[in-house]
Amino acid sequence: MDGMPVGHGLEALFAPRSIAIVGASDDVTKIGGRPLQFLLKYGYTGAIYPINRKAGQVQSIAAYASVAQTPEAPELAVIAVPPAAALDAVKECAARGVRAAVILSAGFSEMGEEGSRLQTLIGQVAKGSGMRIVGPNCLGAIGVPQKSIATFSVALESSFPDAGSVGIVSQSGNLGSFTLRLASERGLGISRMLTTGNECDVDIADAIASLAQDPGTSVILCCMETCRNGDKLRQAMALARDAGKPLVVLKVGVSEAGSAAAASHTGALACSDAVFDAVLRQGGAIRVPSIEQLLEVGHALSVVESGRVPRGNKVAILTASGGFGVLLADAASAQGLALPRLAQRTQERVLSIVPFASPANPVDMTAQVSSKPEVLAQVLAAVAEDETCDALILQSANAFFVPRLREVFLSALTQVAREHPARLILLCARAPQDVRAQLNAMGFPVVEGIDAACATLAALVRFGAREARPAALPTEAAQALSPDAFATEAGAKQVLARAGVPVLQEVVARSREQALAAARDIGFPLVLKIVSPDIAHKTEVGGVVVGVRSEGQLIDEYESLLARVAQKAPQARIDGVLVAQMVQGGTELILGSKRDPVFGPMVMVGLGGIHAEIMKDVALQPAPVDEAQALAMLRSLKAFALLDGARGRPKADVQAAARAVAALSRFASAQERHVAEIDVNPLVVLDAGQGAYALDALLVPDHMEETP
Amino acid sequence: MDGMPVGHGLEALFAPRSIAIVGASDDVTKIGGRPLQFLLKYGYTGAIYPINRKAGQVQSIAAYASVAQTPEAPELAVIAVPPAAALDAVKECAARGVRAAVILSAGFSEMGEEGSRLQTLIGQVAKGSGMRIVGPNCLGAIGVPQKSIATFSVALESSFPDAGSVGIVSQSGNLGSFTLRLASERGLGISRMLTTGNECDVDIADAIASLAQDPGTSVILCCMETCRNGDKLRQAMALARDAGKPLVVLKVGVSEAGSAAAASHTGALACSDAVFDAVLRQGGAIRVPSIEQLLEVGHALSVVESGRVPRGNKVAILTASGGFGVLLADAASAQGLALPRLAQRTQERVLSIVPFASPANPVDMTAQVSSKPEVLAQVLAAVAEDETCDALILQSANAFFVPRLREVFLSALTQVAREHPARLILLCARAPQDVRAQLNAMGFPVVEGIDAACATLAALVRFGAREARPAALPTEAAQALSPDAFATEAGAKQVLARAGVPVLQEVVARSREQALAAARDIGFPLVLKIVSPDIAHKTEVGGVVVGVRSEGQLIDEYESLLARVAQKAPQARIDGVLVAQMVQGGTELILGSKRDPVFGPMVMVGLGGIHAEIMKDVALQPAPVDEAQALAMLRSLKAFALLDGARGRPKADVQAAARAVAALSRFASAQERHVAEIDVNPLVVLDAGQGAYALDALLVPDHMEETP
Repeated sequence: MDGMPVGHGLEALFAPRSIAIVGASDDVTKIGGRPLQFLLKYGYTGAIYPINRKAGQVQSIAAYASVAQTPEAPELAVIAVPPAAALDAVKECAARGVRAAVILSAGFSEMGEEGSRLQTLIGQVAKGSGMRIVGPNCLGAIGVPQKSIATFSVALESSFPDAGSVGIVSQSGNLGSFTLRLASERGLGISRMLTTGNECDVDIADAIASLAQDPGTSVILCCMETCRNGDKLRQAMALARDAGKPLVVLKVGVSEAGSAAAASHTGALACSDAVFDAVLRQGGAIRVPSIEQLLEVGHALSVVESGRVPRGNKVAILTASGGFGVLLADAASAQGLALPRLAQRTQERVLSIVPFASPANPVDMTAQVSSKPEVLAQVLAAVAEDETCDALILQSANAFFVPRLREVFLSALTQVAREHPARLILLCARAPQDVRAQLNAMGFPVVEGIDAACATLAALVRFGAREARPAALPTEAAQALSPDAFATEAGAKQVLARAGVPVLQEVVARSREQALAAARDIGFPLVLKIVSPDIAHKTEVGGVVVGVRSEGQLIDEYESLLARVAQKAPQARIDGVLVAQMVQGGTELILGSKRDPVFGPMVMVGLGGIHAEIMKDVALQPAPVDEAQALAMLRSLKAFALLDGARGRPKADVQAAARAVAALSRFASAQERHVAEIDVNPLVVLDAGQGAYALDALLVPDHMEETP
Repeated sequence: MDGMPVGHGLEALFAPRSIAIVGASDDVTKIGGRPLQFLLKYGYTGAIYPINRKAGQVQSIAAYASVAQTPEAPELAVIAVPPAAALDAVKECAARGVRAAVILSAGFSEMGEEGSRLQTLIGQVAKGSGMRIVGPNCLGAIGVPQKSIATFSVALESSFPDAGSVGIVSQSGNLGSFTLRLASERGLGISRMLTTGNECDVDIADAIASLAQDPGTSVILCCMETCRNGDKLRQAMALARDAGKPLVVLKVGVSEAGSAAAASHTGALACSDAVFDAVLRQGGAIRVPSIEQLLEVGHALSVVESGRVPRGNKVAILTASGGFGVLLADAASAQGLALPRLAQRTQERVLSIVPFASPANPVDMTAQVSSKPEVLAQVLAAVAEDETCDALILQSANAFFVPRLREVFLSALTQVAREHPARLILLCARAPQDVRAQLNAMGFPVVEGIDAACATLAALVRFGAREARPAALPTEAAQALSPDAFATEAGAKQVLARAGVPVLQEVVARSREQALAAARDIGFPLVLKIVSPDIAHKTEVGGVVVGVRSEGQLIDEYESLLARVAQKAPQARIDGVLVAQMVQGGTELILGSKRDPVFGPMVMVGLGGIHAEIMKDVALQPAPVDEAQALAMLRSLKAFALLDGARGRPKADVQAAARAVAALSRFASAQERHVAEIDVNPLVVLDAGQGAYALDALLVPDHMEETP
């Protein structure tokens, strides 16, 4: 199976010509009864083969004693037998030529060792046979247009979802099922749903990929708890991006408590949420914080074609009430949207239509909107023609429930849609279901809540502003590193310098004479530091001297430094004394990389001192990054103002810092198999044009197992 | 009117025995037609007097040509005539002995100068006569039990709210009306609604006070845009607090954009949101960020009697699904709720009931909850008996829609309510309206959304943890300050020192000899600073020398300091040279106060350097604060760890810093009429036990007009 593309072989899950239900039951409260009931109730038109030891009939359909006895090889098998019987069932399906199997039964890795063992064996059947296996312990798959139902989700109890272009994938069966139910209530048409449960074979990346490749799906909603294979997830995100399909992700396990709960729930490693966030952002996914937002953003993206996704974060807000205008302004600001003043000409036009309007932004059209039908169309046209903003929000608490006002609003919106087809106008409004559908069909997303409306628009803005797919950076061949690179500061800095991270001139002196020669070469002032593989904290043993300004002082300090170290760390092997150029001033960054077990090396940068450690003000990205991305990381720091000339400081050499970040990230990426962690602390950034230098550095070795 | 208690004389707004409608109309689309229509439709039982020049009948009721001609003085008058006629109408009402009037008409201060003038004249009628006036430009008042309706709100078009104990007050008519409508949809019973509009007389504080004093109201929901009278608002909050009634406030105008919009909308000064936040917190109000939260928190507080409000932020979460557990854990953490592990004994009990449960917290009861009816009651009992947590959240996406599961849940909840009556259990669940009402009646708040449920519980926790009403701190008589206090650092520090803000020993020397004498008295090392009323930035003229360590150095530095200043600031009057004790080390705070035009002096403290200026990491409170409050301010700083021994530092003398904050706040409060602003920068905080000292200080004078 390795080497197959992500998401391959999953068509049979959604559009099978025939379905076997292994463990089919007459009892519709059982997981073997429910899928069969749903298939019959909702009119699946392919062949249905209930499998039941007793054969005969199940739910009035001819049943078979085993998959081997069905008249044809079923394309899809739904497996609803107890864990102990599942392995044999899976083997039988594979032998019969079934293309995909969904194991609904629970009782596997989530239940302890014996369950885990069984699950591993089942996964091996998938690997060996090419039959894809979903689950176990999942809520299976639904192909909505085909009415193919391989689930026992209660979401289908009362009704079947309307067909549409929104696909849903989830690791948690319950979250997936709940999303499906809310989506149906919200009026979203669904293409496919797939829940992956314990993921013995098909994982969330496969699920995303299968929807990315489905012509019937235009928007993908995803509930994710963990990731077991970073490469596959990246490939799946790339497929969605290349297909132009928005991937909206609710990643749960954000907080420490949530992350611990997710690890206990999924049995998978708890990934750092910051790493996840960076990987999702890099992959062009739109991350949302709640199920409600997952649905709202999915809804908006199913209504707004890609050409109308806003290019920036500037929004014009129109209301008929000052109070709502203030509320929306607050909510928009909280979501990072900007409310620029409209152009003078627009404001004058608005005032000529409504003399007592607030015309700047938010635009308060006043209660005139209710009494004069022409006001709304005219103000909407004036604001839509103004290029100041990237999108509009039109708010109405009540208009769509009042027949007279509804007509005014619909006619004005019809007009603006005709005259400004490229303009995104999001309606923050309550409306009857049929009116909402009508507005959606006209291209207007409708969101009820004020916070929800602004959060939805902000998510669209993030989608519009997502980075282009990063060009693959040249992968440098990893040179073998000498042990010295891991043993001492000097060794670490040498390899980083070769990799393009600037360091100051420095020499390891092994005698007074060498120290003097180095000083003459480098020039004063200087720093002296002990070089020893046995001393991690040099200052604690008196092993650092700064501000050496003359040859006489150098000789004194050289001797007394060695004497102090000899006294405080008598056992330490001494390789010499580092004689290094000294710079003054500048701003200190900390820069580093760390290899994530799932997603590989991540590069991290933050301001030194308390900013990174106490204020958690750091930027993180998957390595490697290029200079532009590195610059964006620096700019994203809350304390970036410190580098940018705040409080009368000179501007720092941010470009040089970005080059150092990018160089370190390339090195971390190339050395992925050998270096687990890199710490540069500090990277001092001098005034603009003066450069940025690693003053101290540490490499932590790691030898990844070569996987076969 | 001044000197009358806040909220006095408003009973006639809600429970009048008779109502006149001035400008009554047969046309029910007009603001003069709507209130009359509502009164008739919903069965107000008092006397109704339509006032209309033509007399005769309006909406089939006998009408009168003027208020003077009604058979009795109406207790309440609703005024719906154009602005130009409103002043006469108000005067007529006052003359007739009407107790309260509501002016629904717009066209006053929101429409420019002429409107403002009219509004002021109307306000003077209220002041002169004692008749309270609501509005103009408002949506008036409703007394729900009395069916007294003085509004034209569309919220009443389709139905009248159910009577209940939740009161609604709002400055914005639209927000108030929208809140009323949502509250009715949410199933909340309403006592009274009052919207205050342009506030020519009755303001939001009066509105809050009138509900605080209404025996029929137990929870007050408030939408606020601005405050025109800080003292009245404080009195109103105190009335609500003393009555034990939660006051839930949606304050709009949080962001810069929102605040600007609010100022333009209300015509009132835009107050700093941080000041508002501090004042509301001090007053014991529960601030919420959205209308949705206003309703959810109002709902919860109408269901949860005060004895069950949680005492702390520790919550136990129970679900039947791991995925929902993770989502809830994230949402709870985001709201500042903690999820401690349940007691070992509880976990063992849970595992004995459900062997494959996750028992720690969140508790995943697994799908067993659906199949074994006894599981839920037993697990609920086990967790409810565990004292680890202050409250429980029980989640169910679906159970209350499935008859069999609904019975299981209702029976388990009935049992736990009987056995643990003091336990707060919030249900995060979707349920049919009637089931929700049933659960509410049993004492369980029901919130649908996951984020909303956690935000609601967090608001209850804040309510439970609100500070006790601050004992009035002793008001010190404000001593007259000499001009020198405002002219120089030394003068400012002298008065601050007298007020209890520690300063280091220092002397203003006017000669070399005095400087030497001071040095002998104080001891080395020393700092020298120029003293001049004309020099604000001492370092810029070379007017500061630190680290003076000997008498010889003192004499040299003294002379050269004066020479530098004479050269760089030849016009400056020189009062002398400050010879001050020098401390080394410590952490720098900035400390200050500023008088808010509405709420009076506020005290502010933050860490020095970039923390306050760039990271906006400051704490703000109304002055004065006591030491405990000052300590809480310091602890609330994000960078508090720096004072608390982070990164191997010694702990700082936080107690001394708190004493200085409290002392400065008392001084700012006592000097309110004379000092507009105080800046202490830095206040250096030494290691624990070593004290905290103002190293530099500035007082900005202001002479408030004595108001008659």
